[in-house]
Amino acid sequence: MASSQGSSPAIAHVYRGTFVHSTPHTALQILEDALLGVDTEGKIAFIGKGEELNKLSQSCGFSPSEVIQLAQHEFFMPGMVDTHIHAPQYSYAGTALDLPLLQWLNTYTFPVESRFKDLEFARSVYTQVVKRTLRNGTTTACYFATIHTDASLLLGKITNDFGQRALVGKVCMDINNAVKHYKETSEESQEETCRWVTSGVCFPQSHISETIEEVNVVKKLFPDSESYTDVYLKHNLLTDKTVMAHGCHLTDEELALFRETGASLSHCPNSNISLCSGMLNVRNVLNHKVKLGLGTDVAGGYSASMLDAVRRTLDTSKVLTIQEPDYCTLSFEEVFRLATLGGSQALSMDDHTGNFEVGKDFDALRVNVAAPEGPIDLVQVDEPKVCDGALSESTAHTFTRTDMHNI
Amino acid sequence: MASSQGSSPAIAHVYRGTFVHSTPHTALQILEDALLGVDTEGKIAFIGKGEELNKLSQSCGFSPSEVIQLAQHEFFMPGMVDTHIHAPQYSYAGTALDLPLLQWLNTYTFPVESRFKDLEFARSVYTQVVKRTLRNGTTTACYFATIHTDASLLLGKITNDFGQRALVGKVCMDINNAVKHYKETSEESQEETCRWVTSGVCFPQSHISETIEEVNVVKKLFPDSESYTDVYLKHNLLTDKTVMAHGCHLTDEELALFRETGASLSHCPNSNISLCSGMLNVRNVLNHKVKLGLGTDVAGGYSASMLDAVRRTLDTSKVLTIQEPDYCTLSFEEVFRLATLGGSQALSMDDHTGNFEVGKDFDALRVNVAAPEGPIDLVQVDEPKVCDGALSESTAHTFTRTDMHNI
Ligand SMILES: [Zn+2]
Ligand SMILES: [Zn+2]
Repeated sequence: MASSQGSSPAIAHVYRGTFVHSTPHTALQILEDALLGVDTEGKIAFIGKGEELNKLSQSCGFSPSEVIQLAQHEFFMPGMVDTHIHAPQYSYAGTALDLPLLQWLNTYTFPVESRFKDLEFARSVYTQVVKRTLRNGTTTACYFATIHTDASLLLGKITNDFGQRALVGKVCMDINNAVKHYKETSEESQEETCRWVTSGVCFPQSHISETIEEVNVVKKLFPDSESYTDVYLKHNLLTDKTVMAHGCHLTDEELALFRETGASLSHCPNSNISLCSGMLNVRNVLNHKVKLGLGTDVAGGYSASMLDAVRRTLDTSKVLTIQEPDYCTLSFEEVFRLATLGGSQALSMDDHTGNFEVGKDFDALRVNVAAPEGPIDLVQVDEPKVCDGALSESTAHTFTRTDMHNI
Repeated sequence: MASSQGSSPAIAHVYRGTFVHSTPHTALQILEDALLGVDTEGKIAFIGKGEELNKLSQSCGFSPSEVIQLAQHEFFMPGMVDTHIHAPQYSYAGTALDLPLLQWLNTYTFPVESRFKDLEFARSVYTQVVKRTLRNGTTTACYFATIHTDASLLLGKITNDFGQRALVGKVCMDINNAVKHYKETSEESQEETCRWVTSGVCFPQSHISETIEEVNVVKKLFPDSESYTDVYLKHNLLTDKTVMAHGCHLTDEELALFRETGASLSHCPNSNISLCSGMLNVRNVLNHKVKLGLGTDVAGGYSASMLDAVRRTLDTSKVLTIQEPDYCTLSFEEVFRLATLGGSQALSMDDHTGNFEVGKDFDALRVNVAAPEGPIDLVQVDEPKVCDGALSESTAHTFTRTDMHNI
């Protein structure tokens, strides 16, 4: 577009319109008539006000005629971050939610996951889940795969091919009493994990305190540990790169260990309700200053959509309010932040994603709430017509819809 | 199509394929390769098995060549019944869910509803809500309108024009301390209600025991009544045509009054969670043999989709299970029944709608789970290929998806 200014990369795109995002201090910030420039490396080069167009075009080196104007009902928001999703389980998402966790794993999950030894089956399902989650607005995902190293590497390749930012975890499992052939020996697990680790960065991810039954099983398996969290801590798995799913039944002492180590939690409310596992007190987690993102936990959660995770997070918070009217309910704005910046923080990616800050990657969704055949009906309100020559389109106003409930 | 058999109307359409519905004894019945004939009056003339095609074509008078074959991934189910939805509130659905019921009514609802005096505004919003709910699969709806008789009659006309079966209620309100101009005098209310009643059948509908705060207000307003339910009973409003929304906080004694009078309940879980109102124990209602359907309660509920009501009903039941592990959780199949036959029973329409029985109206949704760009990904399973000359399409099997979580 324009030539580079000094040593910084040239501007590749400039957008003008509404930008919605979160900052650590403001849960939901709406920038109206903003100008945002993206450089040739995909990074946000500048953010300014529409009225500063001429000044910015000179200082940043782009032509005002090349600015892409968003339509009246469009806005940009940060891509959503799914901090916990089981890619192989997408093959049966939306079914089989009639058992509690441990029986559910033995009856539905392990038999299906064992099939991902077959690379062609894996390719088919993994392609579907990556395409679907991207379509749902998940630009970053933290995937569980299976015990099969090659199929798990394939998942990483597929996310890369489709342009989804992803962390992929190979499952380690040397105990499985239900589906005997779906496990590794301890030696295999060690060898394959070494092979896995050498192929990329290692972000440990696992599950913690999802159900009370599971907490009791862990207590029996590790009688010398003070708590479930202490088991991971003792094995050096609670690090500032660790993401733990659920945590419904963590004590305050355990949350303090998360805080100290910098480990984060993935809140998966759809799964927690669907499997009757429990309800995470997110407010308490936030008060403990533990990093927290949202996860779909497909297929314990039946939806591969992060908007569903947003709605279910609000639901769980409201149920806790019904139980305890003094509970400090999460606001929509806070949950929006958890689905974007919060997830990015939980995956230690907030230095380059999560919101619109100069220097970060422009990782964004362009949303048109008036898309034809879309799920939202805009309501025309009889306000005085706006007479603005700059707008050639209809100038009918709409009720403000800053939440996404209807999407 | 074919000439009439004796005195019964001629057959207009015959469908062959999968039919899914409920009966009073079977929560979810799947009829595979069934034949269903619809007569020229829109009623179900016969239901048989595909293999009986030749016999049925002779006895019922249609040509086998005119049978409409459903595709592999299609099925019919009964149209869904929304037993409680506020048509005017659709104008702000998906917003404004940050207050408890009584403040919510005063702050958001009444100011908006007062605008429906304007017939053109009413026509615009009512057309949107009827089109949207039909698109969402609601073939029958029980609507609340506003205090404006003409606008409420217009809503009835619009449902009729679009082919949606509907009950419409004019609101009676002679107390409103928040929005002074949105109320009637007692005389106006009486006169307008008489005008309303002469225009059609009268099914009383209202709200009951939605929140504890509201229960207490009613207790103060009617100190001589034994319970909230008793207030309606004393005023002859608890009849076998009455539909009451919510009932979260009804006592067993009150449920017994519902049973005795034949009044029914509309369970609106999205609204109950969204406004932190409470959680209805549906199992207890069913054990009391009270008729119960599901409602979206737009806009206390943010979704105008009955599939959302199905999901939220399951969620509430599962939350009750988390709180009390011995709770007898509702099954998906039972909730499917509540959304179809249950709603029809609640609105006293089950003599002619609600499921696929000979003699009832053919009130049905044709669902294609493999619709292009649809929300479901079908997973190919490597089973032996079916070699059936009759099927020209792909014969790949799919995992069974009898629930609709993913839709
Ligand atoms: Zn998980
Ligand atoms: Zn209502």
